[in-house]
This record gives sequence, C-alpha cells and structure tokens, in this order.
Amino acid sequence: MKTYTYKKSQELFEKAADIIPAGIYGHFSPAPLVPVTDYPFYIEKAEKAHFWDIDGNEFIDYMCAYGPMVLGYNNPVIDKAAEEQRKKVNCGTGPGAVMVELAQELVDTVPIADWAFFGKNGADMTLYSIMVARAKTGRDKIIRLKGGYHGTAPWSQSPDHHGITFSDVKDIVLGEWNNYDALEKYVTQHKGEIAGIISTPYHHPTFEDNEMPAEGFWQKVENLCKNEGIILIVDDVRTGFRLHMGGSNEYFGFKPDLIAFCKALGNGYPISALVGTKDMMNAAANVFHTGSYWFSAEPMAAALATLREMKRINSVEKMYKTGTRLNEGLKQLAKDHGYNLKITGHPAMSYYRLTDDPTLMLHQKWCGEATKRGAYFTSHHNWFISAAHTDQDIDNTLKIADEAFKALKEK
Amino acid sequence: MKTYTYKKSQELFEKAADIIPAGIYGHFSPAPLVPVTDYPFYIEKAEKAHFWDIDGNEFIDYMCAYGPMVLGYNNPVIDKAAEEQRKKVNCGTGPGAVMVELAQELVDTVPIADWAFFGKNGADMTLYSIMVARAKTGRDKIIRLKGGYHGTAPWSQSPDHHGITFSDVKDIVLGEWNNYDALEKYVTQHKGEIAGIISTPYHHPTFEDNEMPAEGFWQKVENLCKNEGIILIVDDVRTGFRLHMGGSNEYFGFKPDLIAFCKALGNGYPISALVGTKDMMNAAANVFHTGSYWFSAEPMAAALATLREMKRINSVEKMYKTGTRLNEGLKQLAKDHGYNLKITGHPAMSYYRLTDDPTLMLHQKWCGEATKRGAYFTSHHNWFISAAHTDQDIDNTLKIADEAFKALKEK
Repeated sequence: MKTYTYKKSQELFEKAADIIPAGIYGHFSPAPLVPVTDYPFYIEKAEKAHFWDIDGNEFIDYMCAYGPMVLGYNNPVIDKAAEEQRKKVNCGTGPGAVMVELAQELVDTVPIADWAFFGKNGADMTLYSIMVARAKTGRDKIIRLKGGYHGTAPWSQSPDHHGITFSDVKDIVLGEWNNYDALEKYVTQHKGEIAGIISTPYHHPTFEDNEMPAEGFWQKVENLCKNEGIILIVDDVRTGFRLHMGGSNEYFGFKPDLIAFCKALGNGYPISALVGTKDMMNAAANVFHTGSYWFSAEPMAAALATLREMKRINSVEKMYKTGTRLNEGLKQLAKDHGYNLKITGHPAMSYYRLTDDPTLMLHQKWCGEATKRGAYFTSHHNWFISAAHTDQDIDNTLKIADEAFKALKEK
Repeated sequence: MKTYTYKKSQELFEKAADIIPAGIYGHFSPAPLVPVTDYPFYIEKAEKAHFWDIDGNEFIDYMCAYGPMVLGYNNPVIDKAAEEQRKKVNCGTGPGAVMVELAQELVDTVPIADWAFFGKNGADMTLYSIMVARAKTGRDKIIRLKGGYHGTAPWSQSPDHHGITFSDVKDIVLGEWNNYDALEKYVTQHKGEIAGIISTPYHHPTFEDNEMPAEGFWQKVENLCKNEGIILIVDDVRTGFRLHMGGSNEYFGFKPDLIAFCKALGNGYPISALVGTKDMMNAAANVFHTGSYWFSAEPMAAALATLREMKRINSVEKMYKTGTRLNEGLKQLAKDHGYNLKITGHPAMSYYRLTDDPTLMLHQKWCGEATKRGAYFTSHHNWFISAAHTDQDIDNTLKIADEAFKALKEK
C-alpha cells in the first residue's frame, strides 16, 4: 500500500507561516498532529465522507471538519436548500422569513426548547448562555468543568494562557467531571452566587480518554440546580444531533435550562443556536448580543434542511451503527496485532487510544500510518462519523488500519 | 406616491416574538426603527442596491445589510468566485489554499499589514486584538472610547447591561473621542498598565452626530502609544474599505499596530480579519483563538474576489462620489422645504439628522416617510453606500425624500 507525501501542503504551509500567525491556528493547527509529516494541511475538494488534499491524495475523513459535516460534503439536499435561499438573499438588511421557520423547527425538535436564538460560532452561543444565566439570576459566578471546551472567549480559557487576564476568569469556578460531591461543595461555598453550571453532556477533552456520565450524575446536577436557582447549561456544540435529535440531554435523561448547538446544525453552513425554556426567554431578550452576519438567511435555510434531513434518514441511528461497526473492527484488528485499542465516548464521535504505550507515541504513530494511507485519523481529538460514511468506507478504513498496524510493528 | 404597508412582516414578527428572544435581536432589532410601523422586518430577495420585503415592497437600500454589501447584492463576480470554491470545498477538515492567497492579498493591500488572521464576526477580531495586545505587552488594561462600538463581547459592553459583570470590564478604561488630553491623563494615571488603545478610525456612534478626528488627534495618539509601549488598534469593522483600500488609518494618515476588518471584506460572505505589523506576529500566534467555521474556504474566496473587484472598479472613489451626490441632494431638498439636515461622517457612510427638532422625532418621522415610499432610511445609525448604487438610484431616492418632506409638512 503506497503511502502519501505532502509536498504542496508543506510548501504552502511554509509560505503561510510568513503571513498568517502560526500558519494555521486554533483547533485547526497542525501542531498536535504528530508526526506532522504524516498529515496533509490544505484541502482541495471534498465529497460525501471523503476529501482530497492539494497534493491530490484522497482520504476517508474521520474529522468531518471537526464536526459540522454530518450529512456528507456537498450534500445535494442541503446545498439545494442553501442555494435557493442564497439566490434570493443571504446577508441582507433584515432576516429572511426562514429565521422564524428554523426557530419553529428547533422548538419542535428539542423537547426543552421554547425558543431559539442564532449566531455564527459555537463560542457565540456558549458566551451568550452564561450572559443569559447571569441576566436571569442577577448572580456573577459560573461553574465550568476542568478539561471541558467551550470555545476561546476569555471566560472559558485559563488565566495562564496568552492574552487572558485574571479578571477574565474571576467569576469562573472550576468543577470536575463526574464529581458531583465537589460540585455540591462549590455550590455550598458560593451559596447564592452561582448563576449557572455549563458542561458538555459527556466529557470529551483532547489528549484524554472521553468519559460518559456516571449513573445518576446528571440527575443529581439537575436537582442541585433546581434547588439552588442555578441555570443548567448544556454545551452541545460538538455532540448535538450526533447522540439524539432532541439534544444530547435526552440521550442521558435530564433537562437543562439552555442548550448551545453549532457544528452539525448546518452541515457546514455557518450557524449556531442557543435554545432554552420559556422561563429563560425574558432574560435572553434582555441580553444584547449580536454579530455581523448572524441574520444571514442561507445558513438558516441550510440548517432547516439539515434538521429535516437528519430526521428523515434517521442519521443518529445510522451514525451509531456505522461508528459501532468501525469501533468493533478497529478493536479486533488491534487485538489481532497484539495491541489494545481503548475506545471511549459515543460511537458517532469516539476517542481512540492504544494503551500499550502511555506516552501516546505508539498511538500517534498508528494514526499517522493510517492517515498517510488514506484514512484521516487524528490522535489527540475525538473523531466524527457522518451519515455519509458507507459500509464500503468502513471496510476500506479497516484495511488501511490493518496496514497501519503492520507498519507499526515493522518500525 | 403610494405608501407601503407591511402586513406579512408584522404577522411574522408576532409569531417570531413567541419563539425567538425579542423576535429580532441585536443590531437588527426593529426597536430603534421609530415609528416601527414604517419599516419592513423580513427580506424576501435582494439585487444590486435594492431589496424586496416579504410583502413585495421594493426598497433602495441604504443599510447594505449594516455594512457588508459593498459591491451589490448577488454580485456576479463575487458569487462566481464563492461558488467555484464552494463546489470544491467550503467547510472542511483543513483550510483551502485560498486562505494563504487571501492573507497575501491583504498584506499587499494594507500598508501596515505583515500578516492576516481570519474569523467570522467583527467581534471575533476586536476581542482577538485586545488579547494580542495583552499577550504582547504583558499588561491587562485596555482603553476604549465612550460611544464606540466594538461588538457585544462582555469587555466591550457596560457593566449596567444585562448579563455583564464588573469583572468583565475591570480592566477597561473609558476614554473620549477627540479628547487627547484625557487620553494622555489616563495613560499617565495607569503608567505601564495599558496594553492597548482601541478605537474606530472616526467616531460613528448611534443616535448621535458622527465625528471626524480633530486635526492631529490620531498623530498624537500614535506618538503616545509609541512612547508608552501601548498597542494601537483600529476597529475598521464598519469603516474598512469604504474610506480607503489600505485601511481607514491611511485616509487619516496614521499607523496602528493592528486593524480589525469585517463587514465589507466579503460582500456579505461571513468573514472577518485582523491584520498587524511584523512586531505583533509572535504575540498573535501565541493567543489561542478559533471558531467552528473560521477555516471555511468559500468566504475566503469571496473576500479575495471582493478585494480585487473593489480595487478594479475603484469602489472607494465611486462610493465617495455617490454618497456626496446623495448628501448634496438631500441637504438642498431639506433647505427647499425649510429644514436643516445635518450630515456627518464620511460620504460613503454618513449619519443624518434634521436639527430642527432636538428630540429626533421629526427626523425619525422623515426617515419613516421615506422608507414607506421605497428608500430605506434608518434614523439612529449611519447609512451605507455601495458601489452598486447608481445615479438613477440617487435620483429616485431624492424624489422619495422630497415626497417625505412634503408628508412631514402635511402632518
């Protein structure tokens, strides 16, 4: 099996490094892709669950643009809905009627949702959610959980990060995933001061095994919030519409006050949403939050089509099955080669780790070997399955993974 | 001249108010449009400098989607560039090569720019700019000017706004536009603590006359920053590419360290950029800032085409001429009817006020009368001219404005 090289990607990245900070920055930075020479940097085209880099290499994609691609690149149903809207108006001096239709669709789809608010980035909505919680309660403090990612707004970063001040996080209290007792302790310590608790529905940090909620964790948190007048916020940006169409809280059986959606909502068209209960609506209306392109109609039309298409084809079940098939195959392959592949998180977006080397180097090597054979595996971040991944894709991926294990042994 | 009614807009807004906080929120909220019954809420389609609302009324648009529309709605050159990129890949598991090409174009276009960084909202970049200034200087405090708008991130709001805490603005010092002495005083008071000064290139608040920089203001501020090691940041989100292709600072003859662009950059495709000097690049690379769709290739291709097309047709000069013609015509009409129309700011994005009634009610009435005759005039915000506004559009607008003055007198 021939392995890929990335001459054009590497040359372009060198040029980029002169005129773009870090060349490619943020969560798309190639820095965690180790060894970096195993990975392509720039994408030429994409189709269904595949992409081609600028060197002409083809990949089965397991990042799905870090989440947004849920129904396949260039999905004709979504693209048609987007195009029809775009030809009329996209970014105009007012929203399109589609804004109301999309809000209604979310209210009809998500059980806790009585209303919806739209922005562009996931972080637009996680920030808005804490502003709404503060407006609702008149309190300042927010509990977020260590290792949880809610975007890069200063409140959600650590004060030892570049450009972040202590004031930025003065009102942030750090809890721990699955540690209800600690959470209860912090709430008692800051009695009457906690406006909200924000967390992903399950714990999906980078560079670490992902963790499902312990039995009863969410139900206890929900009760604590109710008793203490604390707003419970689910950051469903990464998980939303991959675990359950009604919000990932439905999958785990609890009811938050606010849910932030983004990634899968528009199949790549730029949109995010905060939904909430009736009780939160006045506070949400009182907070002033907006952005340059937040009322653009095309991504709203795309999101409306994406929600309907996900329901029509039951993409949640399809991704569960595809992910389960991939995971079972990979686990068995690892075993056949004498390794142990630990798989955590939900099958539609699992995190993988070869436990045979605690330094992650072996796992990184395996992911790199697979990537340069055409299955794009990252080693530090959960992967993403889409409804466009076919059985043939999984079969081909398993062949590639097998070759990658062989290459691992040879070195 | 028949006046418009907005039955469908009003009915849809009523429905929206049940399922969307405030119905339409943020800077698109109809609340400042007084009397609100004179304005449409939902857009059906748009073309060049015109849009049609969902009741079928046609408008000559003087908001240009609050700035983004600089070359006309559905501009075939920009839309073709966007479509060609979109058909290959938009939101992918990596940026397109166009990201590097766009950075190069900005570096070639904007004299102070040695690098470019891309996001989605204007506020993504103003926030990033203060994070970069803090990372560069190791200082916490930022001076912003009263009445200046830099988006809705908490640092840029007032602590008496809903959902904003005192910690959010603890490190923000409020200066005053065109008051260099006060600025110097604050810098002396906080000697060695000011990381950056951020301001729009000229003062364009809402509900107030806009103000150009006083003679020597910017040059003194630039010197102060140089002497005190303070990062000078221009928020060119609203003004960028309407005053000067090289950044509005070139129009006023000074050199900042960082410039934030957004609105006109992509002719409505969702993109924003921060550009900066070589000296700022390491700090910019050290700050972690990213968003769900920031690497999408379609808006980058659109921005590249928009920059090239703006240069090709000299849109800055065209908008200056069109705006000047509109302003001279409106001023004369007001005089003919016995009113005084005060026009402030740059001709491509002027602010208008009938000074005959200090309560603004007369001015609001006039704007409403024009709007319901087909020239969309807001009364609280600067307007925007595009390169797609034709002499015929201006002639028709002046006819409508004349009718609006007549209606004003009748009431």
